[in-house]
Parts: sequence; C-alpha cells; structure tokens
Amino acid sequence: MHTLDLTTIAATLESLEETIIFKLIDRAQFALNACIYRSGESGFVPSTSESLFSLRMTHQERMDALFGRFMVPEERPFSLGLPAPMRTGILPDTGLHLDDMNAINVNHILLHDYTSFLPSLCGAGDDKQYGSSVEHDVYAIQAIARRIHYGSLYVAESKYQKDPAKYQTLIKANDESALWHKLTRADVEEAILVRIRNKAQSIQATIRTDLRIQISPELLVDFYRTVIIPLTKKGEIRYLMARRKGSL
Amino acid sequence: MHTLDLTTIAATLESLEETIIFKLIDRAQFALNACIYRSGESGFVPSTSESLFSLRMTHQERMDALFGRFMVPEERPFSLGLPAPMRTGILPDTGLHLDDMNAINVNHILLHDYTSFLPSLCGAGDDKQYGSSVEHDVYAIQAIARRIHYGSLYVAESKYQKDPAKYQTLIKANDESALWHKLTRADVEEAILVRIRNKAQSIQATIRTDLRIQISPELLVDFYRTVIIPLTKKGEIRYLMARRKGSL
Repeated sequence: MHTLDLTTIAATLESLEETIIFKLIDRAQFALNACIYRSGESGFVPSTSESLFSLRMTHQERMDALFGRFMVPEERPFSLGLPAPMRTGILPDTGLHLDDMNAINVNHILLHDYTSFLPSLCGAGDDKQYGSSVEHDVYAIQAIARRIHYGSLYVAESKYQKDPAKYQTLIKANDESALWHKLTRADVEEAILVRIRNKAQSIQATIRTDLRIQISPELLVDFYRTVIIPLTKKGEIRYLMARRKGSL
Repeated sequence: MHTLDLTTIAATLESLEETIIFKLIDRAQFALNACIYRSGESGFVPSTSESLFSLRMTHQERMDALFGRFMVPEERPFSLGLPAPMRTGILPDTGLHLDDMNAINVNHILLHDYTSFLPSLCGAGDDKQYGSSVEHDVYAIQAIARRIHYGSLYVAESKYQKDPAKYQTLIKANDESALWHKLTRADVEEAILVRIRNKAQSIQATIRTDLRIQISPELLVDFYRTVIIPLTKKGEIRYLMARRKGSL
C-alpha cells in the first residue's frame, strides 16, 4: 500500500521541488509571448478558436492519457474527454478513501494562477518562440499539478488518520475554515519557503546571466506561498469533504 | 538572418547546457526500467512490437510535428513519416547553405549512445515508473539532439565562412579526418567539460541525497566528452559534405 506516513509524504513533496524549479527556469528562457494564450491566435490551419497553449495542453494530455498517466491518483488532467489508456496496469492500493479521484482536481484554479504568474516569470514581449514556450508551459504546469494533487490526497489522508474523530466532526459541520486551520502547519510552510529560496539560488549559481535568463528566487518563493501551498490545502479540504463516509 | 558569429553560436550552445543537465537529472530520479526499451513489452493493448520508449517517442514527435517543431533546422526528428505542421510560420533566413535539413540528422547514433549511457545514469532495477521514465527520456534526448544539431549546422557554417578556400579543398578531397582536425578546438572542448562539471555540482548542491538521486558530475562530463561533443563534430562534417557546392 502507498505509505501514509507524513514524513515520507513530505519527503516526496520535497523531492518534486527541483523538478518544478527546473521546469519554470526552462520556461523563463522564452519571452511571455502573450499571443499564445489568446483564443484564435494559434496560427493553426484550419483556424480554431483555441489558443496555442490550450491546443498544446490538449494534445499532450491525449497522448499522456494513452500512456496511462491519469491512472495515477496525483496525475489529474486539465482536459475533459480524454481517451482511455492503451496500457494495462494495476496500481498498488493507494490507501486513499475516495471513489472518484477526479473529485479532487484543482487544475482550473491552477491554470488561472499559473497564467497570472507568467508575466512575472517571463520577460515581456515576443521572441517568436511560440512552440517552445507552450511546450515548456505544459511541462511546468504538469509538474506543479502533480505536486499539488499528491499533497492534496496523501497529506490529507495521513492527517485524517492521526485524528479521525476531530476531522469527522469538522467534515460533518462543513466547517472549511476550521479544516483549513487544522491542516495548516505554519512552521512546515515556512521551512518549505526557505528551502525553495535556497534551491532557486543554488540551482542558478553558475548561470552566466549574459547568456541565460535568471529567475528571482523570491518569485519562486512567492509562487509557492500564494499558489502551490494554498492550492494544496484547498485540495486537502476537498479530499476530506469527499472522503468516503464512515471508512477508517 | 540567423547569426553566424561563432561567439554568439557558442553562447547559445552554452545556454542549452542547464536544460540538458536538468532533464538528465529528472530522468535519473527513476530506475533504469530496462523493459521499457524492449520490443513487445510496452504493455499496450492490443500488443505491438514496439517498445514503450519507442511508442512514446513516436507519439511525442507526431504531436511536435503538428506544432511545427521540425520546421526549425536544429530540431531533427527521430521518427519517419511524421505529419505536416498545422501551424504556418515563415522562418527567418537561417544563413545555412543546405537544401535538405534532414541530410544532417545524427539521431540514430544519438539514440544508440543515449540508451547505452542510461545504465550509468539511472539506478539499476525496476521501480514500475514506466510512464514517467519514457516521458523524461524523450524530453532529455530531444534537448540533447537540439544541442547537437544546432552545433552541427551553425558552428560548421560559421567556421566554413572563416576559411572557405581551405574547407572547400578538404570537402572536395572527401578528407573527413582532416575536416575533423580542422573543426576541433581542444581548448574550447576542455572549457565545456570544466563548465559541465561545475554546473552539475552547483545545480545539485542543495539536494538532500536521502530524498533525491544525485548524479555524478563526472558522468555528465563523460557524456559530453564521448557523445555530445563528438556527435556535434560528426554533424558538422556531414553539414560541410552536404553544403551547397559553390555557394558562399
């Protein structure tokens, strides 16, 4: 069974940080290229109402779906109507008490927050590198979504199991604000932010800034503080509210 | 027109190093999973003779082709029979003297060298993370291929233009060994290797090795020394041999 030990789960979340930082740095090598997010400006022939970013996301997720990506609980899709996997595979018991993994999908919020964040991450303007930009957008947002949903599911179940009576009371009372408070560990969140700052600095320490774009560690810290951490907690609350009633 | 200034071209190659290192580190987080490279073991239903890696590469490149990736000279595909791009786009003059960009495609050699390198890069054994492994394989090998072909094309043309008479003599004489010698700048190659070692160390300096797999900087240095640098020069020679006769 998948571990529900909180220390091990936190370690997995920590190990995903480099991947997220790498992918955001890679995206930042290209200009914002605002047109790639605008409907009807994909340059596709015949023309379509979707943006280039949206087309890329859909194509990527259709491929990923064939390869079985969304069989994994923490891999939640951004797109609807994806094809069934072409691969067979039996997942080990997740230890989660949830019938429909898609009940916990905060990607529509992430998509909004990520695109709002892009003008700070990327240089202004247009460098015509549209294909590379959407390619790296999709890799980055998928890595972030994986972290958020992994936390939403496993952290929530792990915390629930430590104090089921209290959580059941709050869930029954539909008290999201008390759940938010109970799920919050300010010292852990602060430690994550310190770590992100250090990693972002260290990973970029040898960059020649005349050749490669450096991103501000504070920008990544802010993105963790205002998007990744709160969205994970929002997902945790959704998980608890959707958790199978009465199961231990 | 694309620049043919050698310093600028070298700077672009240098700026691709972090991306290559990031993607190889990401691949190394998963075990070798040797079955994903074996024909007929993809787990796809209905079964197919291809390996999971090969299926992923083909699907990825079909998608990339629709988005116009292979309109770019340095993006050479691994697959045959790819669809035409759905996007329109007029490339700026590349400055290259070549009618068929696919005449310079060393990906079949890279594929062999990359898969030979994997047992050193990845932990032995099988962690069942087949989907993630092939996903990161494809991202890594595409980033490496981009670097190799960018160098093959632009470095070769730039060097040619500095001494066209001598290059024409060697090309006419079909003297690949003399071309290899003339293209080689041992001090530049050594500087690349020193840089790769430093970057690999610095990028991983904050890794908690109990959580995340660290790769040896020497392994990356070796891969640059024995694969990336020589394959780039092999591509440069192919470019020079295929270069439009008589054009300046």
